[in-house]
Amino acid sequence: MESLKSQLINLIGISDSEWEMLQERMVPQQVPGKTLLIQAGEVARNLYFIDSGILRTFHLREGKEVNTYFACDHQFISTFASFITQQPSMEYLEAMEASQVYKIAYADMTGLYVESPKFEKLGRILAEKNYLCVLERTYAMQTQKAKEKYLNFLQTYDQKIIQGIPQHHIASFLGIAPESLSRIRKELATS
Amino acid sequence: MESLKSQLINLIGISDSEWEMLQERMVPQQVPGKTLLIQAGEVARNLYFIDSGILRTFHLREGKEVNTYFACDHQFISTFASFITQQPSMEYLEAMEASQVYKIAYADMTGLYVESPKFEKLGRILAEKNYLCVLERTYAMQTQKAKEKYLNFLQTYDQKIIQGIPQHHIASFLGIAPESLSRIRKELATS
Repeated sequence: MESLKSQLINLIGISDSEWEMLQERMVPQQVPGKTLLIQAGEVARNLYFIDSGILRTFHLREGKEVNTYFACDHQFISTFASFITQQPSMEYLEAMEASQVYKIAYADMTGLYVESPKFEKLGRILAEKNYLCVLERTYAMQTQKAKEKYLNFLQTYDQKIIQGIPQHHIASFLGIAPESLSRIRKELATS
Repeated sequence: MESLKSQLINLIGISDSEWEMLQERMVPQQVPGKTLLIQAGEVARNLYFIDSGILRTFHLREGKEVNTYFACDHQFISTFASFITQQPSMEYLEAMEASQVYKIAYADMTGLYVESPKFEKLGRILAEKNYLCVLERTYAMQTQKAKEKYLNFLQTYDQKIIQGIPQHHIASFLGIAPESLSRIRKELATS
């Protein structure tokens, strides 16, 4: 949990007493690889903080998985639209490998918003981050060519994600064919 | 300004003294139709509250305008990604008709976040709303057919926008050809 505390000191200047309030509400969970933490159609009850591991969100389009987000150590993740609206999720949340996470329930999170403005600030920052993320992904999808999208991915995502995720998952995230990604990687390796 | 006050009482339970704090920082502006309030490439310095009028955000793709959002009376608008990051905007903000707006500068808005948690909450709600909006638009773009997109638009947007905006602007927003929209409207009118 120390990684979360130091991150929240940086992000929102959390005090020791506020940290206590949060810590009491965070529940540790050891998750085996390939576990679905949230299913499409059910409400996202929890926001997750990843202590270690890799998680992804995806939805199904015509029966095929389309990845929409990856997160690893010391990052927050949920199917965020469902979490903030408490409406059924369009997406799945999966631990791609064995992961150690801490989860906080919706009622606890919104309870914290009322107890201290620091948590309201955390909520705002998470919403802004999710907004910028989906905006950037949409923009990339609509305007960038395959190679540009991959170079962008390399710049944006953590090494752990870039190296730890099977190539076909990255191709699905970028909306390009696995063969195209393979060709681009070869090009980049020899250039 | 009364419309803004009553909205903020509903949204964040703003008190009279908090309202005073906000009001001091909101600057009224009478904007002629077809005025660009934010240009792509410049930083969005202000968040706008529309007292009356219609505004849109758009970007240029291969020289053509692509609409991304419409707002009318009693709604907030900016090129939001640029406003929250204070990085150059990818988008334009235009008053489509003569509009009365109130604007608040970035420094004033973030200053209010510190002065009262109510404003932090407002910031969170605006970020969440923008997030859900871009997510829904992306999802519609990727999965819905033209008629479904238009029916969705009719359900989501205010009558003032549906009736007040030229059809080609709606077609651009929905990512469909003006001729397709015209055909769909005829179909719906006779069904």
